[in-house]
Amino acid sequence: MNTPLDYAQLQQYDAQDALGTKRAAFELPQNTIYLDGNSLGAMPKVAAMRAQQVLVTQWSQDLIKSWNSHSWIDLPSTVGEKIARLIGAAPGQVISCDSTSVNLFKVLSSAMLLQPGRNIVLSQAGNFPTDLYMVEGLASLLGEQNCQLQLVDNSALETALTEQVAVLMLTQVDFRSGRLLNMQRLTQLAQDKGILVIWDLAHSVGALPIELDACNVDFAVGCGYKYLNGGPGAPAFLYAARRHHAQISQPLSGWMGHKTPFSFDKHYEKAPGIMQFLTGTPPVLSMSVLDAALEVFSDVNLAALREKSLALSNCFHQLVLQHSCLNDLQLLTPLNPLQRGSQLAYRHPDAYALCQALIKQGVIVDFRAPDILRLGFTPLYLRFIDIWTAVEILADIVRSGEYQQACYAVRHKVT
Amino acid sequence: MNTPLDYAQLQQYDAQDALGTKRAAFELPQNTIYLDGNSLGAMPKVAAMRAQQVLVTQWSQDLIKSWNSHSWIDLPSTVGEKIARLIGAAPGQVISCDSTSVNLFKVLSSAMLLQPGRNIVLSQAGNFPTDLYMVEGLASLLGEQNCQLQLVDNSALETALTEQVAVLMLTQVDFRSGRLLNMQRLTQLAQDKGILVIWDLAHSVGALPIELDACNVDFAVGCGYKYLNGGPGAPAFLYAARRHHAQISQPLSGWMGHKTPFSFDKHYEKAPGIMQFLTGTPPVLSMSVLDAALEVFSDVNLAALREKSLALSNCFHQLVLQHSCLNDLQLLTPLNPLQRGSQLAYRHPDAYALCQALIKQGVIVDFRAPDILRLGFTPLYLRFIDIWTAVEILADIVRSGEYQQACYAVRHKVT
Repeated sequence: MNTPLDYAQLQQYDAQDALGTKRAAFELPQNTIYLDGNSLGAMPKVAAMRAQQVLVTQWSQDLIKSWNSHSWIDLPSTVGEKIARLIGAAPGQVISCDSTSVNLFKVLSSAMLLQPGRNIVLSQAGNFPTDLYMVEGLASLLGEQNCQLQLVDNSALETALTEQVAVLMLTQVDFRSGRLLNMQRLTQLAQDKGILVIWDLAHSVGALPIELDACNVDFAVGCGYKYLNGGPGAPAFLYAARRHHAQISQPLSGWMGHKTPFSFDKHYEKAPGIMQFLTGTPPVLSMSVLDAALEVFSDVNLAALREKSLALSNCFHQLVLQHSCLNDLQLLTPLNPLQRGSQLAYRHPDAYALCQALIKQGVIVDFRAPDILRLGFTPLYLRFIDIWTAVEILADIVRSGEYQQACYAVRHKVT
Repeated sequence: MNTPLDYAQLQQYDAQDALGTKRAAFELPQNTIYLDGNSLGAMPKVAAMRAQQVLVTQWSQDLIKSWNSHSWIDLPSTVGEKIARLIGAAPGQVISCDSTSVNLFKVLSSAMLLQPGRNIVLSQAGNFPTDLYMVEGLASLLGEQNCQLQLVDNSALETALTEQVAVLMLTQVDFRSGRLLNMQRLTQLAQDKGILVIWDLAHSVGALPIELDACNVDFAVGCGYKYLNGGPGAPAFLYAARRHHAQISQPLSGWMGHKTPFSFDKHYEKAPGIMQFLTGTPPVLSMSVLDAALEVFSDVNLAALREKSLALSNCFHQLVLQHSCLNDLQLLTPLNPLQRGSQLAYRHPDAYALCQALIKQGVIVDFRAPDILRLGFTPLYLRFIDIWTAVEILADIVRSGEYQQACYAVRHKVT
């Protein structure tokens, strides 16, 4: 059992925090403790400045010329390379474009077309739904005989890796439980059976070090608006290992993925490298903001980031344990740091009402049906004292029973 | 032959222009005549204000709560309904999302799946390449026996409408020539043969009145960043006639198109109406800017818009004819207003060099290989005197022969 944590100890952690100065890079609301950066990251000040620049200097004054003079045309790869550093990808393998769902469709189709004779896409039963829906969508085009989704629990993943499986599609950190999968091990076990592996990094990129190249991953996708702080609905990204570039044929073959988009050829000829994954014209404003937001990461050591992330969630959980009134909170997230992302999920029969009461008090957390309270820990702008305050407020709410009224209302509506 | 146009006459047109006050709604660069609003529309002042609001008030202060409190979640349909008014669509049939290319993939796949036993997608040989590439992409998934692209010249379109054709996919205004197709006639001729019809409105929406419902169109897509002035790479839009909603199955079935996205169901169940065409999370910043830009259209009479558009291009061409030094410019666009969009395209052996020389002088126009000078006329912010000045500058350039040097350089590089 650890020594009980007190406020002074947390103040000391903040004083020693090498990432502590990063908080000033964000525009944060007063009187708010934001434990939902895993849904939508906070706004880096530089992001707002860049948006202003894109609007006032670039779009309005330089108009169409900005595609070259302000390098709009390069944004997908400029942003891609900044993300590459965060996910352990050598240059030329990452671009930013479209949404995570659309990008998943591109890599899924690419992977399936590389695997004739195999038809199964294996995934976690608890994977984020859009990932599963995109497989269903692809199956509707390819036919069940060519594409079929198989879902298993995490514990059954390894035994389900057979030679009928074409693609293993996994989300590295579970959106509900916060469980972190072993990328290296699962990728290798799958590849040993000739399976191609796609990782969804939505809940891990920007929260922990990722080594796609070192793990020999085939494809990956991820989200720009969570830990990367790229703004609401920020463009997503896509990784394809260089070894596949020559063989790939991806079906969302829009003009931006053409070898020479501005020759306006009648027939599609794919760009040679990662650019073949581009489809339409990128949303320049949103992508520029993401580009600026990534500057905040330029001097961040990912090991230090991870260390602080784990320390924040450790503190949270330890403080929960120190409050007997919080005994009903049942931790769903593995405590083992090798199996934990940057969030904690607790089961509680009144999770929804607790979530609402917390939000009312300025502690922004998430609820996931049916009974999960989800808390995200973003090391770039959270302080240890914020953790203290959040748990104090939670304990106050539970002790006072004030949430019970909301609780009754919810039940009344639900039943 | 018309009476020769003079500057005083053009000033008078401006003085009488009912849309003349709209120019003040845009932030335009000094000493620039912008004839490229058909590539990227100019910035409405209200767009910059909205971006600021989304960043400073919404994202940074209200964070995740903004999805509800600032109605981010409704943006695809809010924007869609504003566009619906411009394209003659009753409510519930238009949403904004993704890029034109991605949206085309959605409606193309939907249409093909509704046409078992037919495999041809018929289109114009001169259609915008991304439209053709998306058909190739879909064919790579469905197989040639289920999906095959057939290209014909405009003049052969009607005779190519046979009962093997599943889908007729046309762009209403040709991106090169500016030719306007007869939507009503072609849609009906196709439907008489059991063909479903998709229109790409990229070069017509916001430039002329469109009547999708009245023409009984099946599907349409279009672009937010040209005449709609939604900003660089603004989200696109998609129309699907209500009569198809129940039968449609579109393969980019992301979570935002689910009946209840936040129930996080394992299996996809499509939303009942047009929302089934959503895929991933929308780029809120870019879409908010498009939403604001559309406010500029709220009191615009589309017949008046069309009248001014034609008057501007008429003036341009008449002034070209009045300059004997411009005799080498060969008009590619039909002069008949029933066959003309909101642009003029001229062939000229030195089109590239002329284009560069014009841009250098502040007249922003476009070049399309191999020899086309393309000029877009945007009635909301162009004045008649701008047309005068543009032609004067063009005539000066041709007379002075100053572009010849650039011309030599280009040829030298090309040959």
